[in-house]
Amino acid sequence: MVVSPHVNAPAQIQQDAALSPAQTLWDLTGNDMAAVDALILERMQSSVGLIPDLAEHLVGAGGKRLRPLLTISAAQLCAYDGTAHHKLAAAVEFIHSATLLHDDVVDESALRRGKKPANLIWGNSASILVGDFLFARAFNLMVETNSLEALGILSNASSVIAEGEVQQLAALRNLAMTEADYMRVIEAKTAALFAAATEVAPVIAERPTTERTALREYGLKLGLAFQLVDDALDYGGMASALGKSVGDDFREGKMTLPVIRALKNASDEDRGFWRRVIVEHDQQGVDLERAVSLLRKSGALESTMELAKQYSQDAAEALDVFPASPLRDTLKELAGFVVARIS
Amino acid sequence: MVVSPHVNAPAQIQQDAALSPAQTLWDLTGNDMAAVDALILERMQSSVGLIPDLAEHLVGAGGKRLRPLLTISAAQLCAYDGTAHHKLAAAVEFIHSATLLHDDVVDESALRRGKKPANLIWGNSASILVGDFLFARAFNLMVETNSLEALGILSNASSVIAEGEVQQLAALRNLAMTEADYMRVIEAKTAALFAAATEVAPVIAERPTTERTALREYGLKLGLAFQLVDDALDYGGMASALGKSVGDDFREGKMTLPVIRALKNASDEDRGFWRRVIVEHDQQGVDLERAVSLLRKSGALESTMELAKQYSQDAAEALDVFPASPLRDTLKELAGFVVARIS
Repeated sequence: MVVSPHVNAPAQIQQDAALSPAQTLWDLTGNDMAAVDALILERMQSSVGLIPDLAEHLVGAGGKRLRPLLTISAAQLCAYDGTAHHKLAAAVEFIHSATLLHDDVVDESALRRGKKPANLIWGNSASILVGDFLFARAFNLMVETNSLEALGILSNASSVIAEGEVQQLAALRNLAMTEADYMRVIEAKTAALFAAATEVAPVIAERPTTERTALREYGLKLGLAFQLVDDALDYGGMASALGKSVGDDFREGKMTLPVIRALKNASDEDRGFWRRVIVEHDQQGVDLERAVSLLRKSGALESTMELAKQYSQDAAEALDVFPASPLRDTLKELAGFVVARIS
Repeated sequence: MVVSPHVNAPAQIQQDAALSPAQTLWDLTGNDMAAVDALILERMQSSVGLIPDLAEHLVGAGGKRLRPLLTISAAQLCAYDGTAHHKLAAAVEFIHSATLLHDDVVDESALRRGKKPANLIWGNSASILVGDFLFARAFNLMVETNSLEALGILSNASSVIAEGEVQQLAALRNLAMTEADYMRVIEAKTAALFAAATEVAPVIAERPTTERTALREYGLKLGLAFQLVDDALDYGGMASALGKSVGDDFREGKMTLPVIRALKNASDEDRGFWRRVIVEHDQQGVDLERAVSLLRKSGALESTMELAKQYSQDAAEALDVFPASPLRDTLKELAGFVVARIS
């Protein structure tokens, strides 16, 4: 594969913050991410033109590539000197992209990565089938690495993700969802792929179990923190003004930790409010503001943020089995950075 | 795994015909299909209750299991003496079931295997996500066989299937679809999985290339014949009265070989008819009957049937590299039986 001599992180990462640890990881890992990018573009091709058109919209140049960046960084941390990490990183991005395409159909989202979601442009059928294609291509890539162990980790993560998505669907508009249910859902639908993305690196590098456990733990806790932050941000996080993209979960009647915690000590009146907007799905224009106000007043947003911080710290500490290095320390910073988005 | 000492073929096969070669294969392969059935039921379980509920509806007891039956029969023909064929056969059924679940959402079918399709009971979202789950579980099963070669064959078939489905979607309501386009679509969406189902058997049995080529050819040609027959049956085949389940393709505006061939020498008036019902999708109650009449008059149904017969014969002949045996000869008969459905 021809790889350009130098690659810059996508504009989205560059814009996010000059200090973004993702940008630093992109720099530290040299040309590996360029190789992953090239592989992603190569393997989303097909003689059936609709496939690259739709895939380009979602996984083409400009994606953050957070999960493949984790695989590549973890592989370098494990001093891996082969090329299988490129294929695994691309496979991880394809699995993630396939779930996004299907999620858009399931969630009826209005925006995805700041763009109109593919299903609103090409239709639900195309999104479902191109998602299937990317998922299958992910397995093609994994088979090429000849690592049955990596295949096992990622195929297991794939069925766990689907289970988490189904569990979340079944819990939609159900006020009885518990914190334990919620944690199971986000571990399955989000953290499992982060954990697999980092765990495959020590596996192909044939590193000792301690490193494998540490990197899996790092991915898992980072994924949990990431999803908790996302769920808090959907209600505007701790910012006083509501941004543009808030309220998706609210509008879908999705039960997330902020709502579950706010419900715990809610007055009868407030509980009635949640029942109306979530269970009966009867929402007026001002209801989102009232929801945010209840989540703030009850401390639910703050405590969700605290939990995310805890997981972020756990993630960083898991890497202590590795000697200090710019790469290890930037991965630790990344965990903190993910949570810093919230405040 | 506990396997009951004797298993009968599902009622659907038993009813189809007393002489059904599928029933004979089921008998000839002894308890292998019982083991596959048990594995299918075991691996579609999940703590998320919606998954087994929906999966049971589709892949629970009573399915014809045609594709796993091919894998098991081919493995026995290759004198395979391990147990990996059970896992591969279950994986093949899961891949097939996942595509059916997604197809139902894409096609908006009214009936599937004579039942209401899952998406009309549990909703599109559940069908999409449980399809993803079954697809991932298929890969879990394949990884457990430790055969990277079988994994490569089935993961390749999976991406080819998705490509075929997207190509079919892109060709919907397009009168310009050619015979070559159509053959590419049915080879990808249907025949590729039949071919993979039979090819994995000689691979795990470590048989010579001639047997692998022969069994792949058998599956491929059988799959092509199977789909041609299905497409002819959608217009009632050669029967004079129209059965209950005809007209699905017509209503969806799906371009199939009978229509493509009827269009070839159609008069301007008839071409106008096809344009109205397929391209403009403006259909009245009597249009299906007119379509069937045009397909019969033009010889398009008959020539589609002839092509299916040819593929069926090619499939049977491919098995001539194996010495005569009840198993080989029943597989040959199966190819003929698939086509006999049409008359």
